Amino acid sequence: MECGLLFSGGKDSGLAALLLDSFYDVTLVTAHFGLTDDWEHAAEAADSLGFPFEAVEMDDDVAESAAEQMREDGYPRRGIQQVHEAALEAVAAEYDVVADGTRRDDRVPTVSRAVAQSLEDRHGVDYVAPLSGFGRNAVDRLVETHLRVESGPSEAVPKGDYETELRSLLRTRWGDDAVEEVFPDHEQTRVVGRNAE
Amino acid sequence: MECGLLFSGGKDSGLAALLLDSFYDVTLVTAHFGLTDDWEHAAEAADSLGFPFEAVEMDDDVAESAAEQMREDGYPRRGIQQVHEAALEAVAAEYDVVADGTRRDDRVPTVSRAVAQSLEDRHGVDYVAPLSGFGRNAVDRLVETHLRVESGPSEAVPKGDYETELRSLLRTRWGDDAVEEVFPDHEQTRVVGRNAE
Repeated sequence: MECGLLFSGGKDSGLAALLLDSFYDVTLVTAHFGLTDDWEHAAEAADSLGFPFEAVEMDDDVAESAAEQMREDGYPRRGIQQVHEAALEAVAAEYDVVADGTRRDDRVPTVSRAVAQSLEDRHGVDYVAPLSGFGRNAVDRLVETHLRVESGPSEAVPKGDYETELRSLLRTRWGDDAVEEVFPDHEQTRVVGRNAE
Repeated sequence: MECGLLFSGGKDSGLAALLLDSFYDVTLVTAHFGLTDDWEHAAEAADSLGFPFEAVEMDDDVAESAAEQMREDGYPRRGIQQVHEAALEAVAAEYDVVADGTRRDDRVPTVSRAVAQSLEDRHGVDYVAPLSGFGRNAVDRLVETHLRVESGPSEAVPKGDYETELRSLLRTRWGDDAVEEVFPDHEQTRVVGRNAE
């Protein structure tokens, strides 16, 4: 079955890809808004793992609405959640199986059973979250064994997906301070290959 | 890392084993009370999948307490939950990683984030539930592709783990009607091999 896995280029979605690899025909899908070309970082990460890659463009309205939400809240959670759900919808329109890299301990994005079931029923797809039964320590240990990653602050290691564009949109609208307020001290990872077994 | 996966011999825990196979040294572990020899069904199922197997015996008090709970409730949920948590504790005492086959849509057993975190902190282990991000349909489709199973009513296809023993204990104490009342119309599956890819 054709599985579209939402992929940021980071370690969680990279590990999710390895977990699903034996069970589905996995394509790594990066959802973006066409605001920057940061999705190319995700394309390179996908290539380093040996998976096919697709970039899907979401509607600008989703970015506008999320940026306003985050600016108003002063934290990213609800805005990111909106965008993640829109990204799942975009993938569900194209694939038999929709997946993402959400972990057990993630505070955002989260995909509740109700949201998962609704996505499945409306699109006739399966939604699978292979890391949702893994905590942070288990994920970190598996990443260390199976992936080569680089990590650092967001400015040095931009994510490949919508998050970097949302920062850019906040900066354009409200300046650097708005980005700092919404996303303080954010550490990112980017996959640069698999470890030899 | 050495992973002990709670294994009933059924399709869910069988599929969980395949999902973890590339990431851990998986042993299929059946928790039982020494009341019947039904754990041997699980041993055969493990052998048919090519995994090492271990039977661990839990304390009789756990069975007594669970049987009384189920008899009192008239349904199995809370009793099974007690036994499942005791089984996780038994595995956590022996392995680096504790796993089970709980699905997203399972009503019982469930392992909340709080229970998972407590197990991890007290035993210095990782708890992983590889199917907790998969719904019933996704699991059934993967089982169909990857496993050979037989299915039928519980009397014909007894589970290999504690559930069959709890039925036996209810029957001994309170008769056939008690079993019928607590476990109406229960369909079971047993793994009998892998499908060729």
